[in-house]
Amino acid sequence: MRETLADWRPAVDEAIADLVPREIDTDYLESFFGTPTYEYDPTGIQRALATPLWDLLDRGGKRWRAVLFLVFVEEFGEDPAEYLPYACIPEILHNGTIIVDDVEDGATIRRGEPALHRVYGRDIALNAGNAMYFLPLKVLTQDPAGLPADRRLAAYEMLMHELNRTHLGQGMDICWHNEREVRITTDQYLEMCACKTGCLGRIVARLAAIITDQPPEVERAVAEYAELTAVAFQIGDDILDIEHSLGQAGEFGKEFGNDIREGKTTLMVIHAIQESEPERARRLQELLEAEDNTDDEILEALEILAAAGSIEYAREQALELAAQARGAIDGLDFDAETTRKLNEFTEFVIERDE
Amino acid sequence: MRETLADWRPAVDEAIADLVPREIDTDYLESFFGTPTYEYDPTGIQRALATPLWDLLDRGGKRWRAVLFLVFVEEFGEDPAEYLPYACIPEILHNGTIIVDDVEDGATIRRGEPALHRVYGRDIALNAGNAMYFLPLKVLTQDPAGLPADRRLAAYEMLMHELNRTHLGQGMDICWHNEREVRITTDQYLEMCACKTGCLGRIVARLAAIITDQPPEVERAVAEYAELTAVAFQIGDDILDIEHSLGQAGEFGKEFGNDIREGKTTLMVIHAIQESEPERARRLQELLEAEDNTDDEILEALEILAAAGSIEYAREQALELAAQARGAIDGLDFDAETTRKLNEFTEFVIERDE
Repeated sequence: MRETLADWRPAVDEAIADLVPREIDTDYLESFFGTPTYEYDPTGIQRALATPLWDLLDRGGKRWRAVLFLVFVEEFGEDPAEYLPYACIPEILHNGTIIVDDVEDGATIRRGEPALHRVYGRDIALNAGNAMYFLPLKVLTQDPAGLPADRRLAAYEMLMHELNRTHLGQGMDICWHNEREVRITTDQYLEMCACKTGCLGRIVARLAAIITDQPPEVERAVAEYAELTAVAFQIGDDILDIEHSLGQAGEFGKEFGNDIREGKTTLMVIHAIQESEPERARRLQELLEAEDNTDDEILEALEILAAAGSIEYAREQALELAAQARGAIDGLDFDAETTRKLNEFTEFVIERDE
Repeated sequence: MRETLADWRPAVDEAIADLVPREIDTDYLESFFGTPTYEYDPTGIQRALATPLWDLLDRGGKRWRAVLFLVFVEEFGEDPAEYLPYACIPEILHNGTIIVDDVEDGATIRRGEPALHRVYGRDIALNAGNAMYFLPLKVLTQDPAGLPADRRLAAYEMLMHELNRTHLGQGMDICWHNEREVRITTDQYLEMCACKTGCLGRIVARLAAIITDQPPEVERAVAEYAELTAVAFQIGDDILDIEHSLGQAGEFGKEFGNDIREGKTTLMVIHAIQESEPERARRLQELLEAEDNTDDEILEALEILAAAGSIEYAREQALELAAQARGAIDGLDFDAETTRKLNEFTEFVIERDE
């Protein structure tokens, strides 16, 4: 395992550039997409695909999905450098969902710059994001590792299963945003996270297991680790938004009270509505339903969450999920140092401060 | 072959309802998407997925992709009724692209009613459209026809190849809309159609050939037929917009001069710019570039296209493609009546009047 995870980033980016080069030309198009029936337009495909994709990637991102994949591959006894093209699969998928989610949410900022649909137009951004759902899956057909057919089929079937559940999770989440009433259970919230965020994690883990031909119980164990860590990450993300807003009280920066404004149904919201006096629960619901909130109203909502102990509750849940994630890989025959890093990672996703 | 193609529609809709029922419940979710880690929210998934999908399907559509698939399956010696779930693959994919395209283009009307994003919101519509890219691909995993693994793998690889090219075509088309200058060749326009519209046709034909285990030359022949017919259809669509607008002169209905207003680069536009006097070519370009056009300007643009003989030119091209399509299946051992209908279909897609 390389010294720090960040060491892998340049190699991952090179592998992505092999799939979608920064500069598109006819040779690349013919080799990746096949001989055209008539004639490709490399200029158009540059503008529609490569430019927006690399704009997003160059803004940063830790490539942790690719790195986690490579860590698993190494633990499964293979040389990660030989599987770099496969590491691009979850990474490009993830960045594709970011572009599409931002269009869906009407987000303005992504990684400190205007969201892609604000730079390139909604049509270009959306098509690029959707193209990124299929581009990386061609790696399995290109088959750089020379996998037997049954593993390639298993990988496609796994990807179709998990990508279906991703859209199920996103569907639930969006639907709840649009509803006036918080009507869901804690378990439904966790399922949404498990589908929306967890399935991409599961892809990371299951892909590593499938292409290195691990037994089903090993594939299940790493998938569980990745899913639980992703759910803990999602809850950590929600907590970060609330704590960030609480810490900002008096400043009211651009991102102050984002999730409250959006009326997002989080674990904290579900808990606060269950645990607060009926009148305060109704008031929280009212604030979340409102088309628009004043800064004072945001503070009021934050206060209800804090008073109900909902932030601590959510953190405990996240920590419990992180512990379960560590438990999931406990029985695997992983190197002690890798296990330590994988364990550390489950808490990092909750305790990170950005 | 059933008497008329429309006879298949109820059976196709039943098969789609087996994949995504009109009413979502927990049993369906567990059987299709697997046991949840926590708990699904059927109400949310109903709103996010089944309701928008069936709204679009119930508005009409001929299901011709599903029907063409079944026609091929029958000609390949199998009972089409046994392959109905597979017929849903191109059909649901196609309807998914419609939802996404409408978001990309900011379309207002679809099949006579408000576009889906105007009914359900951009987020729900987009996620439903994207979900429809993956939902039907699960059929191959469910494997109702009990196909050997190599055919399932071949089908997934084919689908990934064609869906990648679909996004390439859509990317070129969108990119050209946004450019101020018409700079592309006729062959690039045809390639865009071959990718954007043709690939879904190719999926219809290749899927039928793959799952019934046809030799490569048969798969190639039907794929070529479907691609050429789809390109002819796309050109026919462009002609329809222009002729409809010419016929409307004086009335100026809601759809008058749609493609001119959008600045769409069509075969007619490329031809007229090449064939007109430099001054008139510049003027056409100017009218297409403009943010907005008056009705008189639309008439002026239509007049330039008509005077350059561009409408006849496009029709000749479409008819030539249709003839090539018929030629592609000429050597196949198809039933005479089926061949007649398939041949008829290549001209129908150009001559239809809506």
